[in-house]
Amino acid sequence: MKAEILTIGDEVLRGEIVDSNKALIASRLLQLDIECHYQSSVRDDPSDMRDAFLRGAARSDILLVTGGLGPTRDDLTTEVLAETFGRELEFDEASFEIIHAFFTRVGREMNETNRKQAYFPAGAEILENPVGTAPGFMIEEQGAVLVCMPGVPRELSLMLDEQVLPRIAEKVQGAGGASRVRARLLRTFGMGESSLEGELSDLARDGHAELAFRTSFPDNFLRVVARGASVADADTRIEEVVEAIRERIGDLIYGEGDDTLEAVAGRLLSEKGQTVAVAESCTGGLIAHRFTDVPGSSEYFLGGVVAYSNEAKHSLLGVPEDLLVEHGAVSEPVARAMAEGVRERFNADIGVATTGISGPGGGSEEKPVGLVYVGIAWSEATQGSDHSRVERFVFAVDRARHRVLTAQVGLDWVRRLLLGLELVGPSLLRSGGGSAPGSHAGMQPAKNFTPRSGAAGLDRAHETSGGN
Amino acid sequence: MKAEILTIGDEVLRGEIVDSNKALIASRLLQLDIECHYQSSVRDDPSDMRDAFLRGAARSDILLVTGGLGPTRDDLTTEVLAETFGRELEFDEASFEIIHAFFTRVGREMNETNRKQAYFPAGAEILENPVGTAPGFMIEEQGAVLVCMPGVPRELSLMLDEQVLPRIAEKVQGAGGASRVRARLLRTFGMGESSLEGELSDLARDGHAELAFRTSFPDNFLRVVARGASVADADTRIEEVVEAIRERIGDLIYGEGDDTLEAVAGRLLSEKGQTVAVAESCTGGLIAHRFTDVPGSSEYFLGGVVAYSNEAKHSLLGVPEDLLVEHGAVSEPVARAMAEGVRERFNADIGVATTGISGPGGGSEEKPVGLVYVGIAWSEATQGSDHSRVERFVFAVDRARHRVLTAQVGLDWVRRLLLGLELVGPSLLRSGGGSAPGSHAGMQPAKNFTPRSGAAGLDRAHETSGGN
Repeated sequence: MKAEILTIGDEVLRGEIVDSNKALIASRLLQLDIECHYQSSVRDDPSDMRDAFLRGAARSDILLVTGGLGPTRDDLTTEVLAETFGRELEFDEASFEIIHAFFTRVGREMNETNRKQAYFPAGAEILENPVGTAPGFMIEEQGAVLVCMPGVPRELSLMLDEQVLPRIAEKVQGAGGASRVRARLLRTFGMGESSLEGELSDLARDGHAELAFRTSFPDNFLRVVARGASVADADTRIEEVVEAIRERIGDLIYGEGDDTLEAVAGRLLSEKGQTVAVAESCTGGLIAHRFTDVPGSSEYFLGGVVAYSNEAKHSLLGVPEDLLVEHGAVSEPVARAMAEGVRERFNADIGVATTGISGPGGGSEEKPVGLVYVGIAWSEATQGSDHSRVERFVFAVDRARHRVLTAQVGLDWVRRLLLGLELVGPSLLRSGGGSAPGSHAGMQPAKNFTPRSGAAGLDRAHETSGGN
Repeated sequence: MKAEILTIGDEVLRGEIVDSNKALIASRLLQLDIECHYQSSVRDDPSDMRDAFLRGAARSDILLVTGGLGPTRDDLTTEVLAETFGRELEFDEASFEIIHAFFTRVGREMNETNRKQAYFPAGAEILENPVGTAPGFMIEEQGAVLVCMPGVPRELSLMLDEQVLPRIAEKVQGAGGASRVRARLLRTFGMGESSLEGELSDLARDGHAELAFRTSFPDNFLRVVARGASVADADTRIEEVVEAIRERIGDLIYGEGDDTLEAVAGRLLSEKGQTVAVAESCTGGLIAHRFTDVPGSSEYFLGGVVAYSNEAKHSLLGVPEDLLVEHGAVSEPVARAMAEGVRERFNADIGVATTGISGPGGGSEEKPVGLVYVGIAWSEATQGSDHSRVERFVFAVDRARHRVLTAQVGLDWVRRLLLGLELVGPSLLRSGGGSAPGSHAGMQPAKNFTPRSGAAGLDRAHETSGGN
């Protein structure tokens, strides 16, 4: 069984974008034991497209095409494919209604050009696109299955997982087997990829379910894939594996699928009727920005103070001047005073604070670049009684990652606090298999967050390309 | 002149890595005016490789191959290429010495297998690899130039820029010309891509220099490419075109090359000894985050307040309660009070404020989703006397882009203020060719920022990959 991936679009050929869709599709196909033999990209040029369609249909069993399904004149995939294989274009009323409903839902007016997206080659099986305007479709030609999907990564990945792969799996296993493949993505924060692998790799080895690991700094994603005679059967297998994973590292899993940590923390705040405010020094507004990225966040996010200067820490957050003088801005007492101060000033239930040295400059022997304190303060209504907690970390990563990682700890602490979980950060979860949560002592950075370490799991995210 | 890029390696076909080399090579070729017509990837399989070499040599003028030059058994590029075109493999003593010296330099012992990397197809021009063990090489076959380069991104990019592109440029321009190509990137904010094209496309049409447009929301980039008999000559031509562009739209160009708007604004603040503080409602911390993304920003960025709630606007920024009651939080007087309030609270020279409705909810007939006020207040030390300015915009884009666009206006106003330029936003520059700056009257959104408009230049940035 040979698969081939074809991307269509001038923007790829001009190098304006890095086409990550191919890697996504190829890795998903491998989960079905289907190897991708060829990948190619051509411009929005009918003649080049035709050649690529014919070559693909001739040499491969499955040709997966992305791009060229949009409403503009440059989007030629459907038209050229139909012409290449001598099929008529047919208007599909049902698809048109769905596209129309999509526009209504997002509050935009449908353009006449979008009508084009409801035409398909005669005999095509149509693939719905719940998150965009471009439906996909499948046809069979010359013994090969041709699948056309949108190029927008989010739309592609959803269509691939929910509609394309199950259909391909059926074809692969023949009409008799009719087995179903299902997948679930778990999003984790707090443990490096290699530790996660060590901790979990004995699960899902019975041949019916598989576990794949992917780093997306600062998170690590786990993907569980399972086969079964039916969807329910496959889902049951997945559920078994997910349960086993949750038993081992449940508190690290903050969400599934498209959940972001800010959306999860926001949902918890909303459910529990709690409010939050943030006092940021080294993260410089990133935590506030992420909280407010979520529509409707004004319900629980009251605001924040970006206090870069000592004067601002004092005047806007009420951090006592003597604390600043005695301990310095990057210190445990100041982080605590910031968290408590911002909570009080905004009259919020929860206050989160960050103060650290993201670098590249500003470090000293006593306070090295990478040092950061994360603080959180909460009210009686949140957890029994007014309280706060501050933790010291040293994240040996570059400035941008230092800020991202610190912000993630702050957001994760809101989640952990509201779920009654221990307030730990990534450095305390380094060992994976070894130490039980809470048995930590050191405050040094986790190996997983030190780029110098060769074994560092999270470092894989450094690699974006290559192989010699 | 048709170029083609071919990547060799199982890791790409299995989707283990995203191949960013292709985008790098394609964009570099474009600077020489060479369009990439095909991109493909094949496994480490001699038969697939042979087919790809033959197809590439037949249909393209230049075939750029990456990967498969390593020392292992899987690395077959050199061997298969030589065999495909009936060339012997020849040992190159000089390359062997260089590889050997490389190992000595990095303190590693050279393995016998590395000897393989000193063999090349007879007649090949060898390309040194100063940062790795795999030299590259070029041959000509069937009228096409075939270039083989290592797949490790760092090694590839160095070899490409220093050895491959100059040789290709020479070939393109013929032995006699030996001309040089130079490029410069101008970063603009405030005018849509189509308007820019209309405004500038008559420039650089003499055949010696060219102008390319690219959208990177919310900015538009202009790339000027020129050829000359020497580097100095090419630079002179570029300078002429850049001068002509500056005469027409100089105030829209905020930087060149890798400059970000926050870095440019920061540099100006630093140079003029000015400080800034921000009061953000709808941008939720994004302006602060961007200012503080720049190392050393603590010199001029004093801090910010993210005032999502009315209470915070009043208590932390001193916005009078009657203003909030009478005009609402999203209003001209409140934006002004926020800018003035944050300037005062932080004792800064400049205060920037945003208040708006990013959506998707929260709009009304009077105050629609997309409405935003940007305010700026400054001190006597900044511009003659204490003063402020507020502008109303309606940006009909989605929530995420609304925030990005609004933040960009805020940052751009700091730049404009410090350069003595008019404080205008993108909606006032919509017409491009037509209206002179300052002749605007309306406050409605520019067409360029309305996704419903098919002509919308800036909307192209929706596409992050693939195209639909």
